[in-house]
Amino acid sequence: MTAPATAPATHDRLPALLDAIRAFLAARVLPLEPELLQREFRDLLPRLAALRAEVKAQGMWAPFLPASLGGLGLSLAEYAEVSAVLGTSPVGHYVFNCQAPDVGNMELLHAHGSPALQKRWLAPLVAGDVRSCFSMTEPEFPGSNPVWMGTRAVRDGDEYVVTGRKWFTSSADGAAFAIVMAVTDPDAPPHRRASQIVVPMDAPGVRLVRNVRIMGEAGSDWASHAEVQYEGVRVPVGNRIGRQGEGFALAQERLGPGRIHHCMRWIGICERALDLMCRRAVSRELSPGKPLGLQQQVQFWIAESRSEIDAARLYVLDTARRIDAEGAAAARDAISGIKFHVAGVLQRVLDRAIQVHGALGVTDDTPLAYWYRHERGARIYDGADEVHKASLAKRILKRYGMEARE
Amino acid sequence: MTAPATAPATHDRLPALLDAIRAFLAARVLPLEPELLQREFRDLLPRLAALRAEVKAQGMWAPFLPASLGGLGLSLAEYAEVSAVLGTSPVGHYVFNCQAPDVGNMELLHAHGSPALQKRWLAPLVAGDVRSCFSMTEPEFPGSNPVWMGTRAVRDGDEYVVTGRKWFTSSADGAAFAIVMAVTDPDAPPHRRASQIVVPMDAPGVRLVRNVRIMGEAGSDWASHAEVQYEGVRVPVGNRIGRQGEGFALAQERLGPGRIHHCMRWIGICERALDLMCRRAVSRELSPGKPLGLQQQVQFWIAESRSEIDAARLYVLDTARRIDAEGAAAARDAISGIKFHVAGVLQRVLDRAIQVHGALGVTDDTPLAYWYRHERGARIYDGADEVHKASLAKRILKRYGMEARE
Amino acid sequence: MTAPATAPATHDRLPALLDAIRAFLAARVLPLEPELLQREFRDLLPRLAALRAEVKAQGMWAPFLPASLGGLGLSLAEYAEVSAVLGTSPVGHYVFNCQAPDVGNMELLHAHGSPALQKRWLAPLVAGDVRSCFSMTEPEFPGSNPVWMGTRAVRDGDEYVVTGRKWFTSSADGAAFAIVMAVTDPDAPPHRRASQIVVPMDAPGVRLVRNVRIMGEAGSDWASHAEVQYEGVRVPVGNRIGRQGEGFALAQERLGPGRIHHCMRWIGICERALDLMCRRAVSRELSPGKPLGLQQQVQFWIAESRSEIDAARLYVLDTARRIDAEGAAAARDAISGIKFHVAGVLQRVLDRAIQVHGALGVTDDTPLAYWYRHERGARIYDGADEVHKASLAKRILKRYGMEARE
Amino acid sequence: MTAPATAPATHDRLPALLDAIRAFLAARVLPLEPELLQREFRDLLPRLAALRAEVKAQGMWAPFLPASLGGLGLSLAEYAEVSAVLGTSPVGHYVFNCQAPDVGNMELLHAHGSPALQKRWLAPLVAGDVRSCFSMTEPEFPGSNPVWMGTRAVRDGDEYVVTGRKWFTSSADGAAFAIVMAVTDPDAPPHRRASQIVVPMDAPGVRLVRNVRIMGEAGSDWASHAEVQYEGVRVPVGNRIGRQGEGFALAQERLGPGRIHHCMRWIGICERALDLMCRRAVSRELSPGKPLGLQQQVQFWIAESRSEIDAARLYVLDTARRIDAEGAAAARDAISGIKFHVAGVLQRVLDRAIQVHGALGVTDDTPLAYWYRHERGARIYDGADEVHKASLAKRILKRYGMEARE
Repeated sequence: MTAPATAPATHDRLPALLDAIRAFLAARVLPLEPELLQREFRDLLPRLAALRAEVKAQGMWAPFLPASLGGLGLSLAEYAEVSAVLGTSPVGHYVFNCQAPDVGNMELLHAHGSPALQKRWLAPLVAGDVRSCFSMTEPEFPGSNPVWMGTRAVRDGDEYVVTGRKWFTSSADGAAFAIVMAVTDPDAPPHRRASQIVVPMDAPGVRLVRNVRIMGEAGSDWASHAEVQYEGVRVPVGNRIGRQGEGFALAQERLGPGRIHHCMRWIGICERALDLMCRRAVSRELSPGKPLGLQQQVQFWIAESRSEIDAARLYVLDTARRIDAEGAAAARDAISGIKFHVAGVLQRVLDRAIQVHGALGVTDDTPLAYWYRHERGARIYDGADEVHKASLAKRILKRYGMEARE
Repeated sequence: MTAPATAPATHDRLPALLDAIRAFLAARVLPLEPELLQREFRDLLPRLAALRAEVKAQGMWAPFLPASLGGLGLSLAEYAEVSAVLGTSPVGHYVFNCQAPDVGNMELLHAHGSPALQKRWLAPLVAGDVRSCFSMTEPEFPGSNPVWMGTRAVRDGDEYVVTGRKWFTSSADGAAFAIVMAVTDPDAPPHRRASQIVVPMDAPGVRLVRNVRIMGEAGSDWASHAEVQYEGVRVPVGNRIGRQGEGFALAQERLGPGRIHHCMRWIGICERALDLMCRRAVSRELSPGKPLGLQQQVQFWIAESRSEIDAARLYVLDTARRIDAEGAAAARDAISGIKFHVAGVLQRVLDRAIQVHGALGVTDDTPLAYWYRHERGARIYDGADEVHKASLAKRILKRYGMEARE
Repeated sequence: MTAPATAPATHDRLPALLDAIRAFLAARVLPLEPELLQREFRDLLPRLAALRAEVKAQGMWAPFLPASLGGLGLSLAEYAEVSAVLGTSPVGHYVFNCQAPDVGNMELLHAHGSPALQKRWLAPLVAGDVRSCFSMTEPEFPGSNPVWMGTRAVRDGDEYVVTGRKWFTSSADGAAFAIVMAVTDPDAPPHRRASQIVVPMDAPGVRLVRNVRIMGEAGSDWASHAEVQYEGVRVPVGNRIGRQGEGFALAQERLGPGRIHHCMRWIGICERALDLMCRRAVSRELSPGKPLGLQQQVQFWIAESRSEIDAARLYVLDTARRIDAEGAAAARDAISGIKFHVAGVLQRVLDRAIQVHGALGVTDDTPLAYWYRHERGARIYDGADEVHKASLAKRILKRYGMEARE
Repeated sequence: MTAPATAPATHDRLPALLDAIRAFLAARVLPLEPELLQREFRDLLPRLAALRAEVKAQGMWAPFLPASLGGLGLSLAEYAEVSAVLGTSPVGHYVFNCQAPDVGNMELLHAHGSPALQKRWLAPLVAGDVRSCFSMTEPEFPGSNPVWMGTRAVRDGDEYVVTGRKWFTSSADGAAFAIVMAVTDPDAPPHRRASQIVVPMDAPGVRLVRNVRIMGEAGSDWASHAEVQYEGVRVPVGNRIGRQGEGFALAQERLGPGRIHHCMRWIGICERALDLMCRRAVSRELSPGKPLGLQQQVQFWIAESRSEIDAARLYVLDTARRIDAEGAAAARDAISGIKFHVAGVLQRVLDRAIQVHGALGVTDDTPLAYWYRHERGARIYDGADEVHKASLAKRILKRYGMEARE
């Protein structure tokens, strides 16, 4: 994803776009939240589909995509700002067809999928007609060691035979296809063992074992995380994305932009949480005429949140700009750094917002508890914080002459 | 609740009692956990009832109660240790009939209920034949200002007419009666306005509006927190506990022992979380032959948790001993201090345990996510941490000569 | 301080300037550090004077000053980056004549001093021939309430008679003059009571009571913080800077740029501390062949420091750019926010760097202990963190409709 | 150090003893503090000697020593409480002849010194006629790996020839002798290589290179930390304490009681800091009639400090009681745990106390800055926190079946 030639012009329209998205969210999406927080995601699908149609009609669909694919051709730094706005609602990204894991899958298929794969799977994904999932994490292997996995794709003539157990395959429930990370070359060096293969979810041998209950909810449809069994699933060799053994490299490539998306979504959540905190602070009275906002502790939480969010936002935007300008490799330190930095800010801000809301804060009457539960994972998914800290430090220390070691 | 004359003898049997409870939990209660974490509490009721019968048969029922009521006559400090053991399972207290809010209601009725109330309500509660709830917090008034509430009990002849809206009336779903805090003397000084009144849940005008969805779950039966409407509910004046206007004083009295119960339950949760952390550390491999426990960060979390739990446990036990020996008033500083101190330890330990479990940690395949969600409230319920910090500091500063002020 | 018309051109030369300063510091200033850390500042004066002459000769003198005054005419954002480089040594700013409090005094005299004052005091200050101090904080009045002070300047004909006690008058020892904040209009509204008045340090009635021992050192000359008694000191009315009663407003005006200077100096300290941390991590062995940098905790501290510094730096630079573009009033939130945010990062980074150095870290064999001691004040001077948090929060809550109150 | 048979009786007199010590500190020692904080320790020696004589005359001298040696025969748990009281002043322990490192050296010579060594060195140490030091840490070897050192003691007939460089030999300046840890058996297993040898400081070849400047102060006499060169120093073989190769084991043995002493001294510092915080909170006004103690943040710091100190104190006392009752080996986990736990509390409490004092907090007008500087080392000396965390965690994980590894 590189900055289009029209970037300067695009930039000019960014503020207007952000305003339009904000207005749409306020008018059309936020009113849906109470139900969203109290009911199954699946039950909301028809109304969400209607909203998606509106977004498409208003020309704001999938803004991160190049214009050639029907998107707005935003640079990464520009889309980052969009993502922060969308992140203020739990379904913001979904309504604009910017939701993970589809956004990453679109990028992957766009950059590395064969024309046939693009026609068969990318096109309907871009159109929002189908959803997809990314099947990588395994219950028996640590997510923090991405080159160690049990799922195998064994070549048999023109087919791969895929066998293995995955979990945390987000949004598998209702997805049309999965991109499965599987070992194709078990004897290659660790980083060259796996490939990424498109597996239709209705292929024989694919079994959605369960939507894993996470923090009290099994969830449904897009809002779910499945355990999936692949049992001798046969797919054509042409379903592979990129070259054989390139699976890990493609996953890495996906990381830079994906990290920006996540981090800016978290910034959006922070902004909403801070907004809720302030609204509560001025409206809740501790005694007649004494709003909560007069409490010094509440004031300090607001101030600390404001400054932490601002610093974090600038850190992510700067990283996005450097990826736009110099590529992900040049920004690798920051791509690691923003992961754990912003995840930490997110957790602190949500925690403060809940405390300011008191008993209301732990109910599902606000989105705070939703995020508190579902974004506890922010410090775990996309590489646990600890993995990124170690990785950043080792790169820094290498420049000081320390050899890498396990 | 004072230490019985037989305390020394009792003390001798405490280690054996703790061992017996640990053994019962391990053999009979823990096997139930997976279902408990994945299903409605209501569905488990028959099996939980069977376990309760076993506990009763083994003479370990309601150990905090005096022997005259069928309990074990433990001192507060002794029961504190029992509570820590029971706390290692989400239903430990329930199975031993030590669960909040029934335990507090039993203490209240025992100490201040009329013989008629004791016969009608205390006896079946002690027997475990019914459950109860305590209806104090209101959605429109801050829990941190306990003397400001909207619910009224207006005297009309030999009856009170109770009207108001409560929420976070824990375990109202399925309860036989509520103890309702209501303003009976609106013109009295703030701390003398309210009374505590027994209201049968099937009385006309009592309406369970909803089990409030908390952190993704509405819950059911004992494991729920209801919003309850009292609409002109008529109860005999004899349903009042203690004297009119004494409601706040009785609530205060309940605080000391109740605080110990809560804090030691949290200690129990911490112990379990640390145990799970250690089990995970030695069994999960990051690469072949390299368990997670070799990671220095994991080691540090284990060590920090161990020391924080030990210090916190001693702090609570010391407070319990002082309440036993000198009464709650003498231990008031510590009763405030343990609340926010232990709630903080609890949150940190749970957070570390989840992080050590990675993706598994946010699932409902371990009790960690259950506690992470449901004990976020530990910093809010029973008085928000901020209330207790302010209260402790003001008492300290008063001794240095600072006048109280709002 | 506004961005000069030549900003773009200036900007082009910024990287070269930063490189030149870095080279000068490495070659000429850092070798002086060991002595600086072990001896009196006063003893180093001749050698520091020689270095200052070199800086002047190389055209890097007082870069924050407009070209008309002999500076480099940098914008605030540009100078911010210079300040971060200078901050890597405890005497970096001093050697380049950018040291507080002189830099603020120069700005003040430049913007608001009469031609006579500029000729008499600004010129030699710019030339580095004299030093100055700013005399505001008083021992008996809280620094966090800047409108409450005891020092009086009573008009008597063409003179003010200044009487009062100040402390934390930094660098008074050896200064040629002080700018004294004194109440001239005791009956005016609080923010209009004080004026700023130039008082020569050799005027009768000025007495340097002591260099206050701070963290174990009384210090000397520029590196000191004096308690000063003004006892009926007579100065001409023309020594007033700006109008009578404008003292507080001028102090406020000074805050924006001054805050950027401080915060970027702290960023420089952080960079140096992180550099020392990394050098230590690769060179110190815990056992033969096992450098400290293999310890996961050390790695995490490095990673956390890198990310916190980067986010903080971007936060300050963004604030500087907004001040350049829109003025300090528009950036007021951020000017509050960076104060406590960066001070917090500074303290954490220094603390980690010391811990990584072990026993060496608490000695004066590295500059870490110097900063640890002298920058503990960073959370206190220039307005305690708590003042800025409250101030930021109140501005935010005001936009949500909460009235200001004490 | 075992509990004397008279423990119960002793215990009865403990409260009176603590009161007497408190009274002595308040009346005789605290008045000395201002000078202590502003001058060289050496300058205070005559007055401190007079105070020591008073303590001796009042029968409170060296209370940790057995009665047979002229002490009070307190158990470790009893002395712990004494240590907390003494710790409230920077020279409390010194005035009562309980100061490190002499206290540890007395214990060592008492338990393992030959009669000749006891007569020659222990007796005058007990009497307070001489001081001593413990020479273990080396600049070129990590303190966190105590079995790796460079100093050698080579047997030559009836003598050891000691050669090596030590630093952080606390109180070497003015000491009569050092107990030097030196490798005597370089080919033995790591933990059996070193021995402890008494070296008179006036022996030929002993050179006090410098009092290392620590946090801005080189210090003097007892209040100093020296770098010492041992250059072919010859001492009789009889100067060895215990058996050859037992040096590490003796150092370990010293750890349990030593840890209690340190931790309770820190608790004493915390109590003083909290006391100063409260005094400041009620006396310093932010505006007329509004003491600092009305600020919620100040209240929260007070409350958090109170609870953290209480929990920490109970943790240390419980550890001391277990050492008394079961020996140090049984309490090993807690001996590790209290080190980093209490050091953390100490740092937080001091930091808050300084912040509450504002500018005054960083001056040497209160003892806060003294402790802030000199107890930053608490997280480093006596084994860095990280060493103890790793050690505790490894012991815990071993019980879960994880093998030890490097």
